[in-house]
Amino acid sequence: MKSAALSALLSSTLSYASPLHLNLFRPATAVLCRSLLPTSTPNPFHTQLRTAKISASMSSSFKPEQARVPPAIPPPTPPLSKFKIGMCQLSVTADKERNIAHARKAIEEAAEKGAQLVLLPEIWNSPYSNDSFPVYAEDIDAGGDASPSTAMLSEVSHALKITIVGGSIPERCGDKLYNTCCVFGSDGKLKAKHRKIHLFDINIPGKITFMESKTLTAGGSPTIVDTEVGRIGIGICYDIRFSELAMLYAARGAHLICYPGAFNMTTGPLHWELLQRARAADNQVP
Amino acid sequence: MKSAALSALLSSTLSYASPLHLNLFRPATAVLCRSLLPTSTPNPFHTQLRTAKISASMSSSFKPEQARVPPAIPPPTPPLSKFKIGMCQLSVTADKERNIAHARKAIEEAAEKGAQLVLLPEIWNSPYSNDSFPVYAEDIDAGGDASPSTAMLSEVSHALKITIVGGSIPERCGDKLYNTCCVFGSDGKLKAKHRKIHLFDINIPGKITFMESKTLTAGGSPTIVDTEVGRIGIGICYDIRFSELAMLYAARGAHLICYPGAFNMTTGPLHWELLQRARAADNQVP
Repeated sequence: MKSAALSALLSSTLSYASPLHLNLFRPATAVLCRSLLPTSTPNPFHTQLRTAKISASMSSSFKPEQARVPPAIPPPTPPLSKFKIGMCQLSVTADKERNIAHARKAIEEAAEKGAQLVLLPEIWNSPYSNDSFPVYAEDIDAGGDASPSTAMLSEVSHALKITIVGGSIPERCGDKLYNTCCVFGSDGKLKAKHRKIHLFDINIPGKITFMESKTLTAGGSPTIVDTEVGRIGIGICYDIRFSELAMLYAARGAHLICYPGAFNMTTGPLHWELLQRARAADNQVP
Repeated sequence: MKSAALSALLSSTLSYASPLHLNLFRPATAVLCRSLLPTSTPNPFHTQLRTAKISASMSSSFKPEQARVPPAIPPPTPPLSKFKIGMCQLSVTADKERNIAHARKAIEEAAEKGAQLVLLPEIWNSPYSNDSFPVYAEDIDAGGDASPSTAMLSEVSHALKITIVGGSIPERCGDKLYNTCCVFGSDGKLKAKHRKIHLFDINIPGKITFMESKTLTAGGSPTIVDTEVGRIGIGICYDIRFSELAMLYAARGAHLICYPGAFNMTTGPLHWELLQRARAADNQVP
């Protein structure tokens, strides 16, 4: 499973140098691509567990086949059989305008090199801190001046005729803040918005302490979107830890699952390769 | 996640020398132990997806919370907080009596070294071939002379007062053959029988071709069993490829998941470490 294709998909290990992140966070974006995965392994699971009987020691009301309601659907034919993906690793500063200009430049560079799909990392317009999130948050639904970060993404996706999975930014909606990923089509239109479902609250004394839930609200919906490069399921960073989300996307016919991330350097190295490879291998379908 | 504890659980890489296996198969037994996994990562999934709304592009009848019916149950307190597991790697010959004597000796050696739970590999009493399965198959339910392999396991588990996850043997039941794992308690009684659910049918031209379904019938039930060392979920080899089974066991409170295996050397090295680590990391619970 550790094919060249799959290895190439694993996020690179560029070091991250923002002093405001205290070197704890490393932007990374994982992309799992169904069309690049081996397809020789048959998957008899659907048929077989659908008729499964329950062994005596389990609750008699438990029906494993319900875990597959509704039945998996075959993925649609991908609009492109082969295309280039640009994954931008960004160094973030306290200067939002500079962050936006820097991201724009990285996207333009990726498109120039032929990328038809460009991805940004998690929280690319703001330092990664609970103090910063409210200050840098934008009202994405209001758009325009209320959201200069997504206005840039819309403009550049339209200008370059590319699809953008726009990492994430802090989003303000009413009195709540979310960690939100916007997907823009090559017409510059916002096609989908994913709010991070699994907030990362961690406390490893002496190593890392961070409570995203102190300022952020968790999203409540999976996000799957049809784009010009295929059907994409979106997760943000810690969302990758929960295999159910990827299984759900695969069952809904996703060609690609994208996880913009900003992993920390304590739990990150233990998880990012393992979880990316596991999601990719587990969810391939014939 | 690649802690010393977890690494120690990964099956060793002893080479396998049976001429009848054409060196394709390498007995291996994976054991995933809940109590040895890190438990610091919070798991907000249950609560959060239970209230998930569905995004517009998904079928409106789809309810992700049904994937958690019934809700996960907390694992029971393990009967032992720490115990030794013996994993026997066995070289299999065409001589069944010799295989049984060899397995017995390995179990006795493990128990002598303090193991309270002993595991054998997949198909340890017979060469791994469709020609052999019908010849070496035993009627486990009839027992006694009709199943000398499990009679030995029963006798030795009782004599040594240990729990045995007895790898697997070809089982004859009526006109059907199964690849079956028997679990014996320290009283020598058969506590559970798992029939391999996911038969391994593979065809990689020039590398490996094997159709288990040519002679074997797939089992239809997950198997989870309470033993003196804890609650154990059982899978056989290719069963590990299907994450749903491990998720189901974790949700049913398993302390341990055991996958007796006999991986081939083409797809095996690509999968066994990845899938064992993925099942362990994904299914840990606080």
